[in-house]
Amino acid sequence: MPNTELLKVSIDAMGGDNAPAVPVEGAILAAKTGLAEIFIVGDKEPVEQELTKHDTKDLPIHFVPSEGKIEDDEAPALALRQKPTASILVATNLVKTGTADAVISMGSTGGTMAAAVVLLGTIKGIERPAIGGPIIGAAPNQTILDLGSNLDCKPSQLLGFGVLGTVFSKLLVGVENPKLGLLSVGSEDGKGNIQAKEASALFRKSGLNFIGNVEGNDLVTGKADVVVCDGFVGNVVLKLVEGLGKGLAGQLKTALEGKLPDDHLDALMQDLYKNNNVVDARGGGPVFGVDGVSIIGHGSASPGTIERAVGLAKMCVDTNLIQEMNKEVSTVMSTVDD
Amino acid sequence: MPNTELLKVSIDAMGGDNAPAVPVEGAILAAKTGLAEIFIVGDKEPVEQELTKHDTKDLPIHFVPSEGKIEDDEAPALALRQKPTASILVATNLVKTGTADAVISMGSTGGTMAAAVVLLGTIKGIERPAIGGPIIGAAPNQTILDLGSNLDCKPSQLLGFGVLGTVFSKLLVGVENPKLGLLSVGSEDGKGNIQAKEASALFRKSGLNFIGNVEGNDLVTGKADVVVCDGFVGNVVLKLVEGLGKGLAGQLKTALEGKLPDDHLDALMQDLYKNNNVVDARGGGPVFGVDGVSIIGHGSASPGTIERAVGLAKMCVDTNLIQEMNKEVSTVMSTVDD
Repeated sequence: MPNTELLKVSIDAMGGDNAPAVPVEGAILAAKTGLAEIFIVGDKEPVEQELTKHDTKDLPIHFVPSEGKIEDDEAPALALRQKPTASILVATNLVKTGTADAVISMGSTGGTMAAAVVLLGTIKGIERPAIGGPIIGAAPNQTILDLGSNLDCKPSQLLGFGVLGTVFSKLLVGVENPKLGLLSVGSEDGKGNIQAKEASALFRKSGLNFIGNVEGNDLVTGKADVVVCDGFVGNVVLKLVEGLGKGLAGQLKTALEGKLPDDHLDALMQDLYKNNNVVDARGGGPVFGVDGVSIIGHGSASPGTIERAVGLAKMCVDTNLIQEMNKEVSTVMSTVDD
Repeated sequence: MPNTELLKVSIDAMGGDNAPAVPVEGAILAAKTGLAEIFIVGDKEPVEQELTKHDTKDLPIHFVPSEGKIEDDEAPALALRQKPTASILVATNLVKTGTADAVISMGSTGGTMAAAVVLLGTIKGIERPAIGGPIIGAAPNQTILDLGSNLDCKPSQLLGFGVLGTVFSKLLVGVENPKLGLLSVGSEDGKGNIQAKEASALFRKSGLNFIGNVEGNDLVTGKADVVVCDGFVGNVVLKLVEGLGKGLAGQLKTALEGKLPDDHLDALMQDLYKNNNVVDARGGGPVFGVDGVSIIGHGSASPGTIERAVGLAKMCVDTNLIQEMNKEVSTVMSTVDD
């Protein structure tokens, strides 16, 4: 396949716990499989040093220099202004200029989102982007959003998330007519806080496949394919699920030690771990609501995670995810009065 | 011990999934152990029929007739007006009139709370009561509130919950100087939604032992002894924890079937169940913020649960819980300007 047909992906080499080693290795993995042509973006010296550790001859991989990175503990908007040549800005700009089709980062979620908003803009009708995806092992095909970027949401914002999640579920998860639920307390319509009640009314007249409220326990059974909540609740849920997974694994290991052969116990623990780390299995998730493909993954990503993120980027591009999101948001948001 | 020194408890015989059989049996258990003098309140015919199945001679147990019950799916306030002789009203009224020291119900949470508010009133400084308690097996001494009765909370309401939870933790859980946390997203002060940011400022100047924000994963490790959140988030958390417990038990059972002897597997499952059903182990929890002892338990309560609830009621009375709550709320709420 000639390079001209290859997907072009820019990867933030400075993002993640083990940067730039892991992003560089992941980039090379992805380039080797012929998945994409890679632009690896980062500080010149450390990235080139990592690149020399691998045989990159004949691989479709290019180094693009940047200076500095956005740290997790920085306020994203301010950091972007102070560091205009930071890796995530340079990497995202490659998408803006059309050099790349998608950008991937395992770095600061806030920085990645802010860079996407500033450079790619948001989809018309979406005020601020969201993060989302599957987070519960028992329901790996359930998309939950927002998971932490919009802490105070207007009902119309929740509706926007519902549209984005529905398109994602359809195109990337492969659910034909995704069932859409609103996270609330009590299954009947009209149960919930003020925000949920108002959002519910908007969903009802949206034309989306809205099945009503879902509750905390319904997240585990995957009652809905797409679950909408504000980023405050979503982030509490996300971190609680992670914490309970770890906690239960510890409990179990203690309870089973000596009662099962070590290799069985290890296998069981790995199964449980995998079942409760569905995000890693997909490599990350798109920044929902920005007008371009920007994939964000976990800081603890392995090279394999990054390769999977490139695969996800390819699916986003191949399915015209962004175009479809633009179309659906435009249609559905026209049902809202305000 | 003469009856005059015995704690007097009224029990709603009509509340719970298997009423009146289970409440009656639980009442008899508690009466037999000499824990309390019991007033069992319910519809005449079915309750007396249950009572005849047991030998109640010489037991400190009295039947008090009522008519009808508040169902789970009824709007509590309306139902109370429509059914002025419902069991929970008659049972709670025994506390109001001084006949009983505490009331216990495994029926409608909303009905129990509404009856307590109407008849016992709320503690001065508390607008509406809350429900709370431990909900995570790995942190059985952590009190989380509100778990679902206040879906839209002002910051000062959250502060009130913090006071109530702190007194409960001190007197009933036995934590000397309870660490108080605010459920939010991000551990740093100033992270969170508008509600959390404003509440955090109130907590800081409250004089309580406020340790700042806690996140979803911190609930599992018990970082704080008392965790405050609004009832919307709390109820999502409560139901998610229940759902994940069930879901993981199912996963495990499948994974371990045939690999462990059946009796080991059963024991493990029971351990896990117990570890993840801490509410049942205490019999229930008090309605936080009402001016009297009202204990609410789960509809699926067993007779043993009800006996434990009587034990909990005794602790509430013996430790002067309500008086202490009144005192602390008065002190702390005076630090709030509005």
